[in-house]
Amino acid sequence: MDLKASIRAIPDHPKPGIVFRDLTTLMGNPEAFAHTCGAMAEAFKSRGVTHVAGIEARGFIFGAAVADRLGCAFVPVRKAGKLPSETLRRSYALEYGEDTLEIHKDALPAGAKVLLLDDLLATGGTARATAELIREAGGEVLSAAFVVELEGLPGRAKLEELSLDVWSLTQFKED
Amino acid sequence: MDLKASIRAIPDHPKPGIVFRDLTTLMGNPEAFAHTCGAMAEAFKSRGVTHVAGIEARGFIFGAAVADRLGCAFVPVRKAGKLPSETLRRSYALEYGEDTLEIHKDALPAGAKVLLLDDLLATGGTARATAELIREAGGEVLSAAFVVELEGLPGRAKLEELSLDVWSLTQFKED
Repeated sequence: MDLKASIRAIPDHPKPGIVFRDLTTLMGNPEAFAHTCGAMAEAFKSRGVTHVAGIEARGFIFGAAVADRLGCAFVPVRKAGKLPSETLRRSYALEYGEDTLEIHKDALPAGAKVLLLDDLLATGGTARATAELIREAGGEVLSAAFVVELEGLPGRAKLEELSLDVWSLTQFKED
Repeated sequence: MDLKASIRAIPDHPKPGIVFRDLTTLMGNPEAFAHTCGAMAEAFKSRGVTHVAGIEARGFIFGAAVADRLGCAFVPVRKAGKLPSETLRRSYALEYGEDTLEIHKDALPAGAKVLLLDDLLATGGTARATAELIREAGGEVLSAAFVVELEGLPGRAKLEELSLDVWSLTQFKED
């Protein structure tokens, strides 16, 4: 199906010159949502995934549905201060300032094979910090998977620097 | 299955005297996660649900998986400032101060039959504000469903005041 047609473009959001790719319209379309979750699960069903790690907050949506389709565990990677037990933390640079992500220290058993999943790959900072957290927690990152990849931004290269396999369902070319 | 055994109790979190029910251990257990998503979908599969509305952020996890199982749309109800298009907003009281939730104005078509879904029902403020937003956006709230209900707190009564059907998969008695 034409998944791109279900993704709303919001010009000049969050700032002038940026076209925001709004996936709420994809989620709001039952066929597009099922197609997305199905295609992502299909792509990884033979890879021995034990855990899907979804990044707060939109990564929770696709990550949980894909984990459920794969019959595996779901691990939330959250903004600082949101997880109730002992965590590992990793800060990463934003355009202005920085942000911090956390994973529970005991989220992954030995031998965990993790599918890192988020809605969108742009500059790659969030996904890179998440991959580092998964490794620090003892997991192997099988792949970093995204519903949308913005090509022309450094996201893919930044993840490949960590020897990560990068996968996306659909791509937009950004200038 | 004994779902309660998969839920971690964290004493004195977020403050002394409160036992926090941590569902990350449930999500981290593939059998418990699949059982939870399956039981929630099963309970509502004959109700004509067109949209599952999940509340940020933990409600996204169970809500998206249940929407995917039901083959319906998923609608995120988010904290203020997170949705990129035009929104409806509703503020509600917290113990100290208040919080604001938003839904996209165009999230629900006429005739939408919505399952409101969150991880946990405690005082009910968040779920009540969400139900009001769904109605304001033109949707009918078929039921407000929770993985865990804390009994002995005013959540259920606060939702029933709005003539909402309230459903929970498992219950803990709080003093």
